[in-house]
Amino acid sequence: MNKAVLIPDSFKGTLSSTQICDVMKKNINKHFPECEVISIPVADGGEGSVDCFLSALGGKKVFTVVKNPYFEDMESFYGLIDNGQTAVIEMASCAGLPLVEGRKNPRKTTTYGVGELILHAVNNGCKKIIVGLGGSCTNDGGVGAASAIGVKFFDNNGKEFIPTGGTLIDINRIDVSNIIENIKNVEIVTMCDIDNPMYGKNGAAYIFAPQKGATTEVVEELDKGLMNLCNVIKRDLLIDLKSVKGGGAAGAMGAGMIAFFNSRLEMGIETVLNTVKFNEIIEDADMIFTGEGKIDSQSLRGKVVIGVAKRAKAKNVPVTVVVGGADNDVEKAYDIGISSIFTINRLPEALETSKHKSKENLEATIDNIIRLIKTLEKK
Amino acid sequence: MNKAVLIPDSFKGTLSSTQICDVMKKNINKHFPECEVISIPVADGGEGSVDCFLSALGGKKVFTVVKNPYFEDMESFYGLIDNGQTAVIEMASCAGLPLVEGRKNPRKTTTYGVGELILHAVNNGCKKIIVGLGGSCTNDGGVGAASAIGVKFFDNNGKEFIPTGGTLIDINRIDVSNIIENIKNVEIVTMCDIDNPMYGKNGAAYIFAPQKGATTEVVEELDKGLMNLCNVIKRDLLIDLKSVKGGGAAGAMGAGMIAFFNSRLEMGIETVLNTVKFNEIIEDADMIFTGEGKIDSQSLRGKVVIGVAKRAKAKNVPVTVVVGGADNDVEKAYDIGISSIFTINRLPEALETSKHKSKENLEATIDNIIRLIKTLEKK
Repeated sequence: MNKAVLIPDSFKGTLSSTQICDVMKKNINKHFPECEVISIPVADGGEGSVDCFLSALGGKKVFTVVKNPYFEDMESFYGLIDNGQTAVIEMASCAGLPLVEGRKNPRKTTTYGVGELILHAVNNGCKKIIVGLGGSCTNDGGVGAASAIGVKFFDNNGKEFIPTGGTLIDINRIDVSNIIENIKNVEIVTMCDIDNPMYGKNGAAYIFAPQKGATTEVVEELDKGLMNLCNVIKRDLLIDLKSVKGGGAAGAMGAGMIAFFNSRLEMGIETVLNTVKFNEIIEDADMIFTGEGKIDSQSLRGKVVIGVAKRAKAKNVPVTVVVGGADNDVEKAYDIGISSIFTINRLPEALETSKHKSKENLEATIDNIIRLIKTLEKK
Repeated sequence: MNKAVLIPDSFKGTLSSTQICDVMKKNINKHFPECEVISIPVADGGEGSVDCFLSALGGKKVFTVVKNPYFEDMESFYGLIDNGQTAVIEMASCAGLPLVEGRKNPRKTTTYGVGELILHAVNNGCKKIIVGLGGSCTNDGGVGAASAIGVKFFDNNGKEFIPTGGTLIDINRIDVSNIIENIKNVEIVTMCDIDNPMYGKNGAAYIFAPQKGATTEVVEELDKGLMNLCNVIKRDLLIDLKSVKGGGAAGAMGAGMIAFFNSRLEMGIETVLNTVKFNEIIEDADMIFTGEGKIDSQSLRGKVVIGVAKRAKAKNVPVTVVVGGADNDVEKAYDIGISSIFTINRLPEALETSKHKSKENLEATIDNIIRLIKTLEKK
């Protein structure tokens, strides 16, 4: 084995993709000291996404002061990759749930800081901005972020204001004529792995607001607010977001990214694969190692492993998958391009027990896979 | 892969070695239809051992009527392999615990039938007899079996009798002068995987008699009986069995096999490997697949996987191990000759749950190992 590419998703709740890459690389080089190992820890858009891109591609972190979820100043950051041409922003860095620990309130919180980060990157000369959704404490439909770049919201009295989740219902008119000019030449891509629409029973408020602190009454209020936002956007901006998949992501930030930032929503793995130029990287690879917490029929609908496998198949590069768990009916996975799937459970133990030794178990599993590969190469 | 040799131990309590061979063979031939697959389900001496040998080597079963554990007539059997030159007897076939369900009593039960099977094989012209211990309901030190071939036991009154566990204490003298003549030219090998001595706190009675129905008082009685047997054997036969490892196997049948049948005790796996001519079989094999319920430091003290690996290493044939569970500190295993170790736990589940799907889990695991091998061969 002369070249291996590592591109695992995290094992949710147990191991980050960076940790997995580290364990894989260490064990590959233990048996193949000369093997070139390229690590691409997969970002899903949430917390840690900037670090993942920087770790895969190099680059630097830019720090700047923006508004936190309660309009207070905080130091946040984004990543610069591609020689400063591309910025990577994770929404969680200034609108994340951990930032409002003890005062969660999706009626009051804002994405204003996210808009400021985007603005900073634009003014920094970036030609492309990747915005990762996920882990947010907000339900403002992205209007806070929009305000930061010049979008104006007016209430029934014609008074301009910066709406939050609880005041979306008051939006009467939206004016985008003052959006800062130089953002218009920037390509903005939003990483978004969920399908939920902006509002309704499967929308942002009903599905995600409870974990952000909303009671049943507040959920209804937030949902009505998002519906109002959707209607005003349709009327004033001529964009119908009602049925857009992913519009409900991150407190309907997905919808706001489309409406106010002219962004497209993209599966996170596709953004990663495009950004790292995956097709070129794997051209001469002997093996791709990927993985995720669990592979099941859900995984076969477009998550990391499958995204990787499809591209690998096109280049005829084998894909070894290492997972925390695998259902036994994943025949389709092999058709899509997966060579083989190994699980890390070294003992028959329930997750409550085994999750505390995920790292050792992953280590033992990858070690034995590499041993088998080496054995076969020697023959 | 042109030739694969399968030699798994059973996964105790979930899968027999024959079942494991079947699953492995099926999945190898699914991906390598032309591959020659040699199945050697490993016998441990207990129930099913005869079938294992017959399945690996061909041969036939001989049925004959002998005494059951209560001296009643029953039909039992043994296997004839090696063109009828070698007999394989499993003690459990006429002295097994399931035969006395509802009337377990190690004070009363006998190994007489085992002696009759040996006698039958001798008279059948066998030059070698393999006797598998394990799964017995007896604690008679093999004196029942000895009686069947002409050994005579006398009590304090000089009266001849056939002792059982409860009357071993009455043995005053042993006379071996009437042992049938033609057994003396037969090589008798006893498969025995345990180390326990004949008597004492780690002996047959204390360790194994409780599961055969002995109360605490009975255990003490049986232990004293075995000690008496040991003493009389030492005095009359000039054989000191006191410290012999494995003498306590199968109600001290191990000791009896040495004293009365001039047998040697051998690790079951060594008997299997010798009998199937393993060294020759693997000469041109591409891969050996073995496995057992769990691989841990215990396994590294001489069980199936290690026995196989040592011989494989000498011939430089790789060994893939598939197990129900593996500790993470088995580095030594690789030194001994194991190439890689895979576990079958496809989901993080406790044994109580996973044991019901061992077969599917094994199937998925072996399938993916073979897929990886095939992938690497194609490259």
